[in-house]
Amino acid sequence: MRAARLHTFDETLKREELLQLEELPNPQVQEPDDVIVRIGGAGLCRTDLHIVEGIWRAKVDRPLPYILGHENAGWVHDVGTTVRLVKPGDPVIVHPLATDGTCPACRRGEDMHCQNGWFPGISHDGGFAQFLRTKERSVIKLPANLEPKDVAPYADAGLTAYRAARKASEILKPGMTAAIIGFGGLGHIAAQVLRSLCAGTIIIVDTSEQALKLAEDMGFEHRVMGGGGMVDDVKRLTEGGADAVIDFVGEKGTPEQGMAMLGRGGTYYVVGYGGMVQVPTIDLIFSEFNIVGNLVGNYPELSELMTLAAQGKVKLATRAYRLDQVNEAMHDLIGGRLTGRGVLVP
Amino acid sequence: MRAARLHTFDETLKREELLQLEELPNPQVQEPDDVIVRIGGAGLCRTDLHIVEGIWRAKVDRPLPYILGHENAGWVHDVGTTVRLVKPGDPVIVHPLATDGTCPACRRGEDMHCQNGWFPGISHDGGFAQFLRTKERSVIKLPANLEPKDVAPYADAGLTAYRAARKASEILKPGMTAAIIGFGGLGHIAAQVLRSLCAGTIIIVDTSEQALKLAEDMGFEHRVMGGGGMVDDVKRLTEGGADAVIDFVGEKGTPEQGMAMLGRGGTYYVVGYGGMVQVPTIDLIFSEFNIVGNLVGNYPELSELMTLAAQGKVKLATRAYRLDQVNEAMHDLIGGRLTGRGVLVP
Amino acid sequence: MRAARLHTFDETLKREELLQLEELPNPQVQEPDDVIVRIGGAGLCRTDLHIVEGIWRAKVDRPLPYILGHENAGWVHDVGTTVRLVKPGDPVIVHPLATDGTCPACRRGEDMHCQNGWFPGISHDGGFAQFLRTKERSVIKLPANLEPKDVAPYADAGLTAYRAARKASEILKPGMTAAIIGFGGLGHIAAQVLRSLCAGTIIIVDTSEQALKLAEDMGFEHRVMGGGGMVDDVKRLTEGGADAVIDFVGEKGTPEQGMAMLGRGGTYYVVGYGGMVQVPTIDLIFSEFNIVGNLVGNYPELSELMTLAAQGKVKLATRAYRLDQVNEAMHDLIGGRLTGRGVLVP
Amino acid sequence: MRAARLHTFDETLKREELLQLEELPNPQVQEPDDVIVRIGGAGLCRTDLHIVEGIWRAKVDRPLPYILGHENAGWVHDVGTTVRLVKPGDPVIVHPLATDGTCPACRRGEDMHCQNGWFPGISHDGGFAQFLRTKERSVIKLPANLEPKDVAPYADAGLTAYRAARKASEILKPGMTAAIIGFGGLGHIAAQVLRSLCAGTIIIVDTSEQALKLAEDMGFEHRVMGGGGMVDDVKRLTEGGADAVIDFVGEKGTPEQGMAMLGRGGTYYVVGYGGMVQVPTIDLIFSEFNIVGNLVGNYPELSELMTLAAQGKVKLATRAYRLDQVNEAMHDLIGGRLTGRGVLVP
Repeated sequence: MRAARLHTFDETLKREELLQLEELPNPQVQEPDDVIVRIGGAGLCRTDLHIVEGIWRAKVDRPLPYILGHENAGWVHDVGTTVRLVKPGDPVIVHPLATDGTCPACRRGEDMHCQNGWFPGISHDGGFAQFLRTKERSVIKLPANLEPKDVAPYADAGLTAYRAARKASEILKPGMTAAIIGFGGLGHIAAQVLRSLCAGTIIIVDTSEQALKLAEDMGFEHRVMGGGGMVDDVKRLTEGGADAVIDFVGEKGTPEQGMAMLGRGGTYYVVGYGGMVQVPTIDLIFSEFNIVGNLVGNYPELSELMTLAAQGKVKLATRAYRLDQVNEAMHDLIGGRLTGRGVLVP
Repeated sequence: MRAARLHTFDETLKREELLQLEELPNPQVQEPDDVIVRIGGAGLCRTDLHIVEGIWRAKVDRPLPYILGHENAGWVHDVGTTVRLVKPGDPVIVHPLATDGTCPACRRGEDMHCQNGWFPGISHDGGFAQFLRTKERSVIKLPANLEPKDVAPYADAGLTAYRAARKASEILKPGMTAAIIGFGGLGHIAAQVLRSLCAGTIIIVDTSEQALKLAEDMGFEHRVMGGGGMVDDVKRLTEGGADAVIDFVGEKGTPEQGMAMLGRGGTYYVVGYGGMVQVPTIDLIFSEFNIVGNLVGNYPELSELMTLAAQGKVKLATRAYRLDQVNEAMHDLIGGRLTGRGVLVP
Repeated sequence: MRAARLHTFDETLKREELLQLEELPNPQVQEPDDVIVRIGGAGLCRTDLHIVEGIWRAKVDRPLPYILGHENAGWVHDVGTTVRLVKPGDPVIVHPLATDGTCPACRRGEDMHCQNGWFPGISHDGGFAQFLRTKERSVIKLPANLEPKDVAPYADAGLTAYRAARKASEILKPGMTAAIIGFGGLGHIAAQVLRSLCAGTIIIVDTSEQALKLAEDMGFEHRVMGGGGMVDDVKRLTEGGADAVIDFVGEKGTPEQGMAMLGRGGTYYVVGYGGMVQVPTIDLIFSEFNIVGNLVGNYPELSELMTLAAQGKVKLATRAYRLDQVNEAMHDLIGGRLTGRGVLVP
Repeated sequence: MRAARLHTFDETLKREELLQLEELPNPQVQEPDDVIVRIGGAGLCRTDLHIVEGIWRAKVDRPLPYILGHENAGWVHDVGTTVRLVKPGDPVIVHPLATDGTCPACRRGEDMHCQNGWFPGISHDGGFAQFLRTKERSVIKLPANLEPKDVAPYADAGLTAYRAARKASEILKPGMTAAIIGFGGLGHIAAQVLRSLCAGTIIIVDTSEQALKLAEDMGFEHRVMGGGGMVDDVKRLTEGGADAVIDFVGEKGTPEQGMAMLGRGGTYYVVGYGGMVQVPTIDLIFSEFNIVGNLVGNYPELSELMTLAAQGKVKLATRAYRLDQVNEAMHDLIGGRLTGRGVLVP
């Protein structure tokens, strides 16, 4: 099959061929619960750039070369002998983590903390290819009105946004307020999820006029221009501070600013990464703040997100590239020329 | 009445007379829901030292002189015309915050976030005196087997420990583990509360042999010597990391160490203050950590704590001083000569 | 002032003058936290009929005569000396229960379980009059865009619907389903609340074509005709049973049918009353069902509902009568000629 | 192998040979995730009697003959090719339900609502035998200090008690009260679990002096003799009603009595079965009661219970019989001669 592999890191991201297109053997069923997916779409994510930069080496030690792509959807191509959940031909989205199903975290339903999980596209071969090997526990059959190439980015970006927004929705009663910092790929999903899951008031914060215009078009009436004045603007709109802040940037000062926007007892949800959270313990105590880290969501959460997508409550802007355009797509993302989420279609 | 007032700040805490003993007029009922309490005991707290140092000026702007003492218990002396909850002679403990009862926080039961609350001993005259003015909403009638002078420190130190431990108890299922950093005044209450409210395993961490000995005597079988090796020790005992860490120190590296002890999905509860929480956003996300700030508890929580005390499930080591020994007591606290909580008895 | 009082019970509800219009002295401020409200609208409720029938005598022992009317809104007319939350002229809605604010239930925020609460219009004089006496703790200032006469029925009917729907919303994740039995005064509010608070699928069940037509007009796409086939219809639509059933009828077989509609682990919320819940213990166990009773909501919940109303997320159909038309209004309700909620305007 | 099978129902339970001892072929690994357990102990349960009586035919349609026994523990004898969690020789307890691991209920961690679950000893061959076939997902490795024959009854009776007590523990704050009706096999486990998981006050209700004596010996200080006066006794002890009632009888009037013991907002947890819950809807509403059905617990809950047992926080009185004494054991249970839980040891 055709696949795009990472052979060497590039901290500068300046190399033209960040990934190398190659012809490789198809993945095969190895265990009774394996599922081989024919890729219909593989989302391109800022994390792919961070992997190329080598940032993830500290967290996941994976020898090169290997195939990137951790936001995958397609059709079931082949299944192991015990697989009952899906059959060849079924359209599926692939939960990003392959999990053992027997560790305590899996048994509580929190698969993403699986003690033996592996991550196609991060620790193992991923979906920038024609075929992908995953497990029965990781596939969700798509509702009839959803196409693999249109939903692939939900598998990771969407699911991460969903989990953070779902956590925030649990505290947001009518009259309470959430500020969303960053109305990009994840932020615009989180805003829609939040609007579906609760009646709290939503304030969109972004430094880009274009992003705020998109927020307006999507019906988000409270918007704040990012930058120096955003803390004051949010405090004024909320009459004292937000109950929840969801930060999809997580660097360049947004953690400090995000926490400064909170009202008493408020919670700062961090999703974006790169920077530091730095806060005096006395501030945490005096106003009784909470800070909540957010990893990708679990399998039931991905099912729930697919339900929202099928019901039209959450929509996603994507831009399709052919698999052989993968380097062009990555450079578009680096250069800020990619609006919406890029999806590679083999 | 006799009272101890702060007239000037002293950053060094070296002055012999940190507070000044004076004869002052008794506080009087001013509003229909006022309650005048004859003090039976007033707890001495490290926060009193921080007030003398001037550290709290950034948070609470209060002109000098005024009477310190925010951990108060005694007997009802006089009541306003609408007070029904207590009558003169009733033994009571005093919730540290006087609250309006009508703001949204009060209506949800979270009085300590009251929009109009005032804090006797911090923002108003407190209980290092013979009498204290508070409100009906702040007094809890004591069970028959509890004496004011024995329970006064529960009003703030105990309540803060209770709230943090109660939050942690909600996630600690059997087989899960909490590490408590600092087995001093608050920590030893939190440990007892935690043991009462859940079946999670408790690990006591302290840098003092004496504190660990006390923990042993109180039946806490898992103990770790604080310092350089404590992170490794906790990770080994918990086979990978604690589900909860409650930090009663909050400075000198314990926030970093506390977070380093956590297992995936774990929560760091911070109570002690003075230092900074500094953590890369990627760490919060990758392991999906939470950080929870803890202010003093609400009124129902203080009632619950009094129930535990009356049932003998939580015990408190106190050392009584006469009110005119207040400066001696404070210097004992500064000099590390005060084991247990100091209580001033007028 | 002008007021409508109940002088004698009438089990048959056939008497023309069910309530008697009289001239009575205005209520006066008696305690420092009293609030006198000039009534702008008082909702008429099926409970008023049940009171006239004498059904409530078993629950609340109240000598006749007295003024009915427990769904009240208007403008503050006079206040006691300690009232700070509102001032004369403020438009307010009145929480149906006057509460002490100091009992354990009040302190936890669950005012409707107040140990010393009294219920204007049920245990004390109510709002079918020009003025009403209530307490500071019971009034909520109205947002600028809401009129007392338009919101009065939210005070009890709306609040009860809100509380039941809010409880159900907490379990309804995307893809889960709630059936609402009875799309009348409470049911049509509950459906709108549920749609605002969660993304669960909503099925409207009613025996009236007209009610189902209204549900369609309000955008509820899943509707089932009540009666013999409704259990099967709901089970088919939900592929096995609903996760939540909210029953606003509560008699004539709906409890049995409502529970028969549930899927495994499902919850039956009962609001309407008159009949019996009768279920074999083995059924409760085998499918692990829950049954949840619902009283009127607490004060924060009424605030939240007012927020939803002000935001246009919940709308209420009302029909205004003059206070001197109270008996006509009651007979319209008895005769099924009153669509929407009746509101008496003095 | 040796096994005890049910060949014909007997409504009267008078037949001497209720089950027939036979020599049968050993169960074999059929699927890659199968586990064959060599039985160390199989608990005897009142449900076994109900099965013999034919009561369960309405719920589970299972042709005769088959082997009873749904509370099983032992040692792993053989495993399928994909089993990683255990290896031959490991001591295990067997979760009573064999589940698919892929349905929505399993993915949320609530295995006992599995859409494709099967129940050894109820729907399939059980553990009154030398060997049992189950699945990897159903076995939990025992801590070193627990013996299979001592823990077998935890697999169903203990787990059911655990789940009900755990639910109740979530609402029982210090000062709140739970009444446990029935201090038999399940009740005495539930009481110990409740004492471990929360600080609520526990009242034991039983009609047997002997059971109340056992409760006293186990340190439960609040005890009430069952029968006509028990409602009043509990209401007096709780000053108005219990916050939680857990009913392990569920027939002969205990549902009505159990609900009559509740205070406002209280919850009735039903575990025992046989009778009916019958309650006027107005009572459910007026006092805002909840009724909670309880099936057996999920896999993580069985792990938690094993932790409590290993820590000595929950103890179980058992009486061992040889497998060939199965009919004697059953008649001892019928005749009330079996104190503690009976365990069959092959």
